[in-house]
Amino acid sequence: MGKARRLDGAALAATIRAELVPKVAQFRARVGRPPALDIVLVGDDPASHIYVRNKERAGSETGLAVTVHRLPATTTRDALLALITQLNESAGCDAILVQSPLPGALGRGAAQQVFDAINPQKDVDGFHPQNVGLLVQGRATLSPCTPAGVVELLRRESIPVAGRHAVVIGRSEIVGKPMALLLLQRDATVTVCHSKTVNLPAIASQADILVAAIGRAAFVTKEFVKPGATVVDVGTSRVDDRALVARWFGDPSQRLADFDKKGTAVVGDVHPEVAEVAGALTPVPGGVGPLTIAMLLKNTLIAAEHARS
Amino acid sequence: MGKARRLDGAALAATIRAELVPKVAQFRARVGRPPALDIVLVGDDPASHIYVRNKERAGSETGLAVTVHRLPATTTRDALLALITQLNESAGCDAILVQSPLPGALGRGAAQQVFDAINPQKDVDGFHPQNVGLLVQGRATLSPCTPAGVVELLRRESIPVAGRHAVVIGRSEIVGKPMALLLLQRDATVTVCHSKTVNLPAIASQADILVAAIGRAAFVTKEFVKPGATVVDVGTSRVDDRALVARWFGDPSQRLADFDKKGTAVVGDVHPEVAEVAGALTPVPGGVGPLTIAMLLKNTLIAAEHARS
Repeated sequence: MGKARRLDGAALAATIRAELVPKVAQFRARVGRPPALDIVLVGDDPASHIYVRNKERAGSETGLAVTVHRLPATTTRDALLALITQLNESAGCDAILVQSPLPGALGRGAAQQVFDAINPQKDVDGFHPQNVGLLVQGRATLSPCTPAGVVELLRRESIPVAGRHAVVIGRSEIVGKPMALLLLQRDATVTVCHSKTVNLPAIASQADILVAAIGRAAFVTKEFVKPGATVVDVGTSRVDDRALVARWFGDPSQRLADFDKKGTAVVGDVHPEVAEVAGALTPVPGGVGPLTIAMLLKNTLIAAEHARS
Repeated sequence: MGKARRLDGAALAATIRAELVPKVAQFRARVGRPPALDIVLVGDDPASHIYVRNKERAGSETGLAVTVHRLPATTTRDALLALITQLNESAGCDAILVQSPLPGALGRGAAQQVFDAINPQKDVDGFHPQNVGLLVQGRATLSPCTPAGVVELLRRESIPVAGRHAVVIGRSEIVGKPMALLLLQRDATVTVCHSKTVNLPAIASQADILVAAIGRAAFVTKEFVKPGATVVDVGTSRVDDRALVARWFGDPSQRLADFDKKGTAVVGDVHPEVAEVAGALTPVPGGVGPLTIAMLLKNTLIAAEHARS
């Protein structure tokens, strides 16, 4: 990276997890069991299996009881909903996470139906409409993990938000919209851009805080970034084209050498050249990703404590 | 007004109400009774009594059954919640509106508790967190009346929204936030500004569509407005200072003459001089206000039909 300060999400995630450990232990001492997270994983998507394993490991290391329900790709919607009902009603389950994406075979609208079925008090992803509404109203107990992680990062890195202009590129339910709402709640002036935005670089380059959450590798180039701005890179794209990696990261470069070892690279939405102009920048990997998992663990503890308050 | 096209909300509201009449009659023929709106009005606020009377009249003229529950200012929170429960359970009530503001004597958090208690399917104001969440997710059945009215106005006046830059000044739960979300859903690039925004005129004057919803009389002056922009004025402030009315509207002027008759004037957030630069502008009064009521009647029919679908 160039001159931009590197915002080390992985290190902050480790700090957050370490802060959770004694709180989780206290919960366990008080309640007689650890906070319990149930993860539902349907089908064979390799990336999903890796993500779930990472969540499982991070949760266990923090002292949570993590149960992974691995269901075959042939699982019916009814069977999946029956499992959700069972977990909703189980006193031994505090938090439910259904890993996205669900297999296409479950049919259109399956994800929405499943997320809607989760008990809002156990909804650690914060996707249930009730939780989304409470987020808008500034009184959410469970905020979506990725945007909550970004806010936590800005706070701990002492990057001011109030009165600053934040531009969010992307308007997904999972990142873009809740990110915009959380920044607005912290008194930023907030602009949401997307695929229909005209003259995106001109708008993005007004941002004091630029959040890229579109899932297009290296899309955000220098012309999108005001000198000195804080740039948060939420995107992760898998890139299998060596020429692209060479062009973006240089030849020779560490990233290209890594690519040659693995045959693939994980690349953010932000072009590496942005490090030359940004004031601070989250790397990919090692930026927002680990924070998302840390916030999931934190939400699990919050859900468990809330159920007992 | 100057050269800006006048966006006649009152006329559009009359059109919407006229369109509702046969649909309401069809509902009545099918169900054996008209769609039923219950309005709860607590206390003696004179403005609230006028608003409720206007809603009652407009509803009755459209063929709805409107019942106003007028409760004394001494009503307890429990009594109010008991009425909400009764209306929630009543098969003869399709839609519930609790007029804001509630008397301060009900205590902090009363409004939130009461809005949360309303059955989301009867929540024609769209304030329940479940409905707010569905709005964010682009699948609301009941959208808040004022922003829904603004969207309807833009649509019927053929003012393009997709790809345009919309700036919303104000971030209330009732107008600012849902307005931003509805414009985003219609593919606008959306910026939300508020009291903490730095250099507000510079940001507002980028807007193709500028929505002012702050409740500060004549706050939005020419410097906030890009020439040719569409300006939507949601604010209504009561002004009792003759000198201000004379300064804003001119002396002599029709508005000043009206003031001298009534001793007060209703003034929007947008300064009259904006008519000289805007391309189109909603007046106050006669702009967004009547649309809000028309959308309330429409939401009542939607709620009634939805309960039977």
